[in-house]
Parts: sequence; structure tokens; C-alpha cells
Amino acid sequence: MNTDILKELDPLFNPQSVAHIGATNNTNKWGFSTITSLMQTYRGPIYPVNGHEDWIQGLKAYKKVTDIPGQVDLAVFTIPAERVAAAMEDCVQKGVRSAVIISAGFAEVGPEGKKLQDEVLSIARKGNIRFIGPNCMGYWSASSSLAAFMMPLLVRDGQLAFVSQGGNVGAAVVVAGYERGLGFHRYVSCGCAADVQIEDYIEYFGKDPQVKVIMAYIEGLNDGVRFMDVVKKVTPIKPVIILKPGKTEVAARAIKSHSGALAGSDAVYDVAFKKMGAIRVEDPEEMLDIAIGFLTQPMPRGHNVAIITPGGSYGVLCAQACEEGGLNVVKLPDKTIEELDKIFPPRWSRQNPVDPAGDRNFVAYMIAPLRLLELDTVDSVIFMGFGGFTLFSNLLMQQRSQQEEKMKPEQVTQRIEAMRVIIPIIEDVKSPDFNKMQSAVRQLINMLALFMGIQDLAQVGALSDVLVEARRSGNLKDDVVDDILELANAKGQRGESGRTRAEIINSFIIGLLNALVDQWIDSYKKPVITTTFTEEQVKLIGDHYDYTSGKRAARVLLHLTTYHDFLVKIGKDHRI
Amino acid sequence: MNTDILKELDPLFNPQSVAHIGATNNTNKWGFSTITSLMQTYRGPIYPVNGHEDWIQGLKAYKKVTDIPGQVDLAVFTIPAERVAAAMEDCVQKGVRSAVIISAGFAEVGPEGKKLQDEVLSIARKGNIRFIGPNCMGYWSASSSLAAFMMPLLVRDGQLAFVSQGGNVGAAVVVAGYERGLGFHRYVSCGCAADVQIEDYIEYFGKDPQVKVIMAYIEGLNDGVRFMDVVKKVTPIKPVIILKPGKTEVAARAIKSHSGALAGSDAVYDVAFKKMGAIRVEDPEEMLDIAIGFLTQPMPRGHNVAIITPGGSYGVLCAQACEEGGLNVVKLPDKTIEELDKIFPPRWSRQNPVDPAGDRNFVAYMIAPLRLLELDTVDSVIFMGFGGFTLFSNLLMQQRSQQEEKMKPEQVTQRIEAMRVIIPIIEDVKSPDFNKMQSAVRQLINMLALFMGIQDLAQVGALSDVLVEARRSGNLKDDVVDDILELANAKGQRGESGRTRAEIINSFIIGLLNALVDQWIDSYKKPVITTTFTEEQVKLIGDHYDYTSGKRAARVLLHLTTYHDFLVKIGKDHRI
Repeated sequence: MNTDILKELDPLFNPQSVAHIGATNNTNKWGFSTITSLMQTYRGPIYPVNGHEDWIQGLKAYKKVTDIPGQVDLAVFTIPAERVAAAMEDCVQKGVRSAVIISAGFAEVGPEGKKLQDEVLSIARKGNIRFIGPNCMGYWSASSSLAAFMMPLLVRDGQLAFVSQGGNVGAAVVVAGYERGLGFHRYVSCGCAADVQIEDYIEYFGKDPQVKVIMAYIEGLNDGVRFMDVVKKVTPIKPVIILKPGKTEVAARAIKSHSGALAGSDAVYDVAFKKMGAIRVEDPEEMLDIAIGFLTQPMPRGHNVAIITPGGSYGVLCAQACEEGGLNVVKLPDKTIEELDKIFPPRWSRQNPVDPAGDRNFVAYMIAPLRLLELDTVDSVIFMGFGGFTLFSNLLMQQRSQQEEKMKPEQVTQRIEAMRVIIPIIEDVKSPDFNKMQSAVRQLINMLALFMGIQDLAQVGALSDVLVEARRSGNLKDDVVDDILELANAKGQRGESGRTRAEIINSFIIGLLNALVDQWIDSYKKPVITTTFTEEQVKLIGDHYDYTSGKRAARVLLHLTTYHDFLVKIGKDHRI
Repeated sequence: MNTDILKELDPLFNPQSVAHIGATNNTNKWGFSTITSLMQTYRGPIYPVNGHEDWIQGLKAYKKVTDIPGQVDLAVFTIPAERVAAAMEDCVQKGVRSAVIISAGFAEVGPEGKKLQDEVLSIARKGNIRFIGPNCMGYWSASSSLAAFMMPLLVRDGQLAFVSQGGNVGAAVVVAGYERGLGFHRYVSCGCAADVQIEDYIEYFGKDPQVKVIMAYIEGLNDGVRFMDVVKKVTPIKPVIILKPGKTEVAARAIKSHSGALAGSDAVYDVAFKKMGAIRVEDPEEMLDIAIGFLTQPMPRGHNVAIITPGGSYGVLCAQACEEGGLNVVKLPDKTIEELDKIFPPRWSRQNPVDPAGDRNFVAYMIAPLRLLELDTVDSVIFMGFGGFTLFSNLLMQQRSQQEEKMKPEQVTQRIEAMRVIIPIIEDVKSPDFNKMQSAVRQLINMLALFMGIQDLAQVGALSDVLVEARRSGNLKDDVVDDILELANAKGQRGESGRTRAEIINSFIIGLLNALVDQWIDSYKKPVITTTFTEEQVKLIGDHYDYTSGKRAARVLLHLTTYHDFLVKIGKDHRI
């Protein structure tokens, strides 16, 4: 049937016009929020269909689909279950090409509902209408900017595709993804999946080059054999992340009642997923964590990890999580320990995890990962407390401001004037002339080191070289340089953007760190996974995402490694 | 030695004056951020001690502690390790009563450092000086508003006490706690714990009536026998939550290098913790989750849990987490199913987890938990998607506003005027006259039900009764009523506080839900644990906290239940 799934499902994901059967002005019905969702996103013609209302939110409404003058590619259903079959007949007559049935009361309620569902299916088949649902929350297609959701959800375009057999988990993942800065190319709440099956969506996502990572929430399958067959073909091309509950008896019973699916033996699923190279996760949070990992990191070539931490206890927790997951917190060679001896105070940990033990030397901390990444025995680096730099630099700057309040005005002016001498240097950072740019970046880092009280010029030189390369390859963006310029130009506590000096410095440090991490990844083609200092919520900035704990970072790295092992096993050791 | 630990450690936690040995104006030294931390919090006399600087941040500095004219209760050390012993001699001579040694370079660096540490200890013992550290981040005492931190941290007063053998994990927990709205009565980063031991702090916290929950991050113990002895005496009185890594070999090695401690056999610890009734957690996030559970929930009387969820898939994940942890997702009696049949549409799950399957009836969803809580076979309730109501009501109100933009002006005015008729009613909600208040609350709920399109007055009546009781017992606060008044008085889209109507409704709904949950807990003395809809960061509002997933809620309930089991076993089945 699915000889060409891309063509087959095209009317669903790229409709040229939409009819909404059950659109209404009554704010207490799902039909109200659904038409609103359509109107807020879709730019093609929308035809509300309602037996009683003539105008819906300013759009002319029609009594029946067959009354609509133009062609209808997609029909959205929010009417009660018992009226869906008749309306579907109208759609067949009208030549509608696809549908989404949000309405509930089908297979999930028992044999009566199943009968109704079969009837709707056979009518749709007659007219060659492929449909999503019934008993679903709707779907999102970025390519036609179409959100047909029964409830208001925040979603943006991106490289993820997600099919969910639970509208609730689906909505939560979409909203949480939005808040983390992620985007979706497709999202489908598939409900009872009477027509298009979970494996059809996965096959479709697998063939769509816009999709980089596939995610699925699955409660049970109608055709396990075909599912395995499809997933096996997709995993060599892109990662498939699966959340599948049903490990316990009550969960299985709840699944039966929720989606009408049979949970099946969990152990069987577990073995099958592993064999197919699918990645099984434990909860929605982890699903997004891993997806971000695949979107932002290269594949680790092996199990050896090096950890650098701003404090011992964090390193301990992260090392434990890595080991428990089967990663190897690798022993450092003597040569590396000697090199790190040169940049850290004698009290540093002298082993992996690398812990400078409270050293305030920011430059050393930014240089150390290079000594780890360049080792053949290190496949990936977890760089901890990344976000902490900005947190503490922020608080530190507040303290400095308070100190300045106690200084004589001429002292403050002197300080600010001293900064302004760097303006011509900073401007050269943007120069297309490589030599000029290189010299400017080096001077910039010298000034930063001076500002941080660091005198060892050998270290500063090493950092400069990485930043010169970052600038050359576009990892050190213009806006980072602009931050420094604004800072140098600031008269008093605020720059021309209205940000305080502390805020500008923060923004600059984030930019600098991002540039460095991006540059390390580019140069060494190894994952560099960073963590924040506390559990604060974070967003994807550019290509960079900060996990909120060493444990989460370790889980991500573990899944990336397991997927790479799978690719090697099947002879597809490529980078994604 | 610790015959009266409260008296013994009093000078540390309630000093009348503080000397800071190593205070400096040099912003690149920890001594700068430490003196700033002291000056930002402590209101008693602060004496900076520095051999070279005369004035530090506007305070007169002294060359030596013995030069200080007044009495010194506490000495804070941030000078290099090799100078600590001499300065400690000065402190003994001066009659200083307590100290915190932030300086690193002692036992954690090896035998040389250990020798230095022993020397400092014996000098302090001579002068009866009890001290925190060395090699620590400092500490916080709410009773004297004293934060002696080497880095800027956000902390507020509260009912938690926390001792951490890792400054890093400690700081992260304190900051994350602050962001979640939690407060600390005491927080100690104990470092190498040369003098005051981890078990001394726990004993001290145990005896302090201001402390409700004790938390500890432990890498290794100097005296395991005494530790067990102390914890055994504290757990019957208040919960002790312990984070103890060291399950793996590399983690144990990292611990040795970090705090100089021996991790010991993890299995031995695990058994010992269980026997003592201490609660062992996996990571800092869970530590705070459980602490909040103990602060805000009553003890569950048994293992039977009922779950109510706004969507099937969420219920599935939560039920699975409960069962995996050993809780019992209890079967509902036929009587309860019949009662819920009356308020939910036929498609509801008809089992535990209770899932109304997309029903929009807000009142029914708020009544259903009563049917569960009143069952003798239900010991606790997990109420899912609590925060989701506000998320979706917010988005829904935005949609309504957009709809109003398309309405004729007179229609909008009509709508707003209709709201204003309720002003006199709402004002009576605050009346001290019970009959007046009761009648007003009932009318208020009637109007809300009307607003939500609910016609079944029996349900509305049941909800009214709970809210009348909530009002009577102070759970429905005045500001919730004020929100409604502001809404009714609003001319146009904004109220007098400048909030939009959607924002006011949100605030009102949060207040109403909080009042209901508080009232359920008050009436049934059973835990009612709520969850948000997505992973958004949440704060403690009043007594109420929303967990971000069913899994986290289940973990909290599990630990509460285990602790209750322990109390029953030792014959101390009290409520905390």
C-alpha cells in the first residue's frame, strides 16, 4: 500500500485548503479552540462547516462540506463521534483528499465505538482519504504552517518529527520543546490510528530530508511485524527515539482504557528496540534531552569519557552516572596530568574527573578541555558548570557595581576610560583581513585575562589560538564582538541597548563560551556536552544546549554512544 | 564531648561579631567575594583583617585579629593554608569563640596538608574554638542573617537545614532551592570537617525546633559508628534526607581526591540508611523534591494511591512510576465508579488512573478527587495537570481576547457589564458573617460554572461546599477574591493592577485550585500531590508545590510512604 509514502501522505501535510467540520463560536467547545488554532497558523483558505452558525470568527460558514465552493484538501473533524460517518460520506462526495478526526468515542470506548470507527474507515478508503485519528489532539505541519490542535499549543518549525499515541504526553513534549527552543517539522497526535499507523508516520518521517530526529510515544501496536520492519529501515539513516510505557500491570490496564491498545510484553519490546537500533527512553524529559543531543553533537567514537568540573562533588555525581550507564571514565596519561599541572594550582584533582578545586583561573578552565579532546583515548568530554560561569559572573558584577558605588567618581571614570582604549582593537576582530583579525582577537583575550587577574601568557596564548580559529570558522559571532564594543562605549552603568554592564559582560561570556565549545566540536569531531550549575531551565542558544545535571549529560552521552555502536555493527559508521 | 550540642555550636551560628582574616579589595580573590557576602547579609560588627590594606569596602581593616578593639565571636579565614595556623594562634590569644576556614590545601591534598590541618585543629582545641572546614565554601545561619560564602549565593530563611561535604553540590542545591521558593534555616559546606563533623551538624539540626527537614550530601565519614548513632536518634523526630554517591569505582576515586574521604562499601551504606530510617536520594533535584514533600504534605497512612489525570498517557506514565516504586495503584470500588459515572462523560476510563478523557468540565475535575479522598482504601492522591489548567486557561483567554477584537464594541461592553453585576456578591465572600459568606461563595461558583458552560448544579453544589469550608478555614485567601473584584471592575482588557484579564483569571484560578488542594489535605489528612502539565520550572506558592512529572510525584510519595512505614515500625506514627 505504502509504495510511496511521501506522495501518499502529502495531502495531509501540505493541504492547499482546509474545511473544519464542527467549527463554532461557542468558546466552551473544542471546536472553538480548534478553529482558532487553524486561523492563528494556516494561511490558505479555511472553510468552517456548521449546521447552525453562518459566520464563525469572521469566516463564512457552510452547512455541509458539499456546500463549499472551492476544492478541499483537508477536513478537520471535531463533531460528535456518531455524526462523523455521515460527514465523511460528504467528504468523499466532495473529493476531499485527507482528514484529521479529533472527535473521541471510537475504538477506545469499546466494541460499539470500534464498529463506528470501522465504518468511518471503510467510507474514507472508498474515497481514498487518508486520515489521522480518531480520538486525537490534532497535528502540526511546519511546511504548510498548519496547526490543527484541539487546544492551544505553542510550536515552531524545526528538525524534529514526533508521533504520539497520547495527546497529553504529545502536547507536553511539544510545549516543553518550545520552551527549550526546539522546533518540530511534524507533530502528530495519532489517537486510535484507525487509518495511518504509527509505523506509517515513522516511515514518512524517515524519508523526509527535513527531519533529523524521529520521536515516538507508543502505548501499543496494531502490527508489530510491520513496525519492526519499518523502524529497521529508518534507524540506519536517522535516530528513532521511543517512549513506551507498559512495564507494569496497572500501566498496561490504563493503556487498554486510554488508547484501546494492548501493551504487550515489555521485555519483548525491549529486546526488539535494541535489535532495531531504536533508542528507548524513560520519560518525556529524557526524550527531549536525547533529541537535543542528536541535533547538536557529533557521534562519539567510543565509550571513553573525560569530565571537567568546577567542583569535586559535581564530578563525583557525574562520574557515577557515566559508569552506571556503561561509559568509561578514562584514566588520563601522565603526559596530560603534567600539562594540566602547569595550568592548575597543585591542589587540582590530578585525575579524571578534572577538578581545579576552586581555582579562579577562567582561562585555565577554558584551556583544559583542549588537553582532553586531543587525546586519542578520549571519545567525548562532559564540561560541567558551563552555565554557572554566567550565573556567578552576573552576581560578581553586581558586587563590583556595589563596590564602584563606594569609589570616588574619578576612580570610576578612570576605570571606564581604561576600557575605551580597546575600542579600535575590538573593531578589528570583525576585519576580513586574517592578520588584523588574529592580532585583534589575541589582544582581546589578553585584556580579558588581565581583567580576570591572569598573568600566565602561555595559557592566554593557547586560548587565543582557539578563538582565532573560532572567529575564522564563524563560531565567534559578530554579536559577541558587539557586546564588547557596547561595554567599552558604555558611559556609566548601562550600555546603549539599556543593558547593565553586568548583563553585557554576561552576554559576552556566554558568546565566548559558545564559540569555544562549537570550535572544539568542529576541530575534534567529538561530543562536548555541557551542564549548568543549578537546575535552572535552559534554552537552546544557537547550536548549544546546557543540561541541568551531570546525570542528564551522562544519559545523553550514553544513548549517543549506544546508537553509534549500533551504526558500527551494521556497517554505517557515519556522522550525523 | 557533645553533651549539649546546641550550646556548643551556638557561637558558630549566632555570633555577635565577625572578623574576616583575608578580606580584600582585590576583586580577583575569594576574600573579596567573601567580605561582600558578609557585608550584604550580616548586621553586627564586621572587622576585616589584612596585613596590607587599611580600608576594605569602607570598613577599617586591622593587621592582626589581636589588633581588633572589641570582642570577636567568629573568625572567617580566606588566607592561604600555610598562614592559617599562625592566624588561629592569634584567634586563641584574642579569645575568638568560633571559626570557619574556607581556605583550601589541607587534608584533601595529602599527608602534608593533613599535618597542617592537625596543627590548626590542636591550636583551636587549645582555645576551645569550634570550626567549620577547612576547604569549604562557607555557611549560612538565618538566625543571625549571616552568609559567609566564598562566592555569591542566593539564600533565604526557611525550615530546611543542610550540611554538604561538597561545596559545589551544596551551592547548587541552595541556589536551586532559592529558585523553587524554599528557605534554609542553616546551610553548612563542611569541607574536610576537621573539627565539627557531619554527624555533629545533624545532631544540632535535630535538636533545633526551627528545622523541619534535614538534608545531607555525604562523600565519606570519619566515624561511621557515631554517625549511625546520631542519625538513629534524629529520624524518629524529623526526616533526614541523604545524598551519598560512591556506587562506582571511579566515583570513589574522585571522592578520595575531592574531600579526602573513603567512600566505603555502597551496599553497607544502603542497608545502614534503611535501618536508621534515613531517606536516600539519587541526585540534588530529588533531594529538593522530597524535602518539599515533607514540608507541604501530611504522612500517607499506607501504600494505596489514586491518580487523576487530564489525559490517558500521563496517567499511564504516572501509574507505572508508582508501581515500580512499590506503591499500589488501588482498584476503585463499584460505588465510586458509579459516582464518577454521574459527573464524567461515558468515555471516561472507569478505573484508576481516573481519566475524564478530554472532558472540558472543570468543575467535575475538581470534584472527582473528593470521591477518591473519602475512600478508606485510598491513602493518597496524585492530582495531575494541576498547573496545566493555568497554562491552558491563559492561552484560551488570549484566544477569547482575539475573538473580542472581532466583536462589535457594544457586544464587548455587554460582556464586561455582565461581569460587574457580581461585584456586590464577591465583596460578601470576605464577610465575617458565615451565612453571608456561604451564600456569596456559592453564587461565585455558580457564576464560574456558568462561565465554563456547566449546567449540572449538583456538581457545582459539591464544589461550593468545599470552597465554603476552604474560606472558613482560611485556605481561600482574600487576594483570590480581590482578583475576581479586579476582573469585574476592569474596563477593557486590563484591570487596575495593569494585568490583562487573562492574567487576572489565571491568578484567580491558581488561587482557587490552591484553596481546594489545601482544603482537601486539611479535611482528609492525606497527601494530595499535584503535577504541572509540562516541565516548566515551578515555585512554592503558599503551601503548594507542583511537580513537573508524574514520575517525580510518584518518587516523592514513595519516600513519604517509606518514612511513614519506618515510623510505624518504631512505634512513632505521628504526623509531621
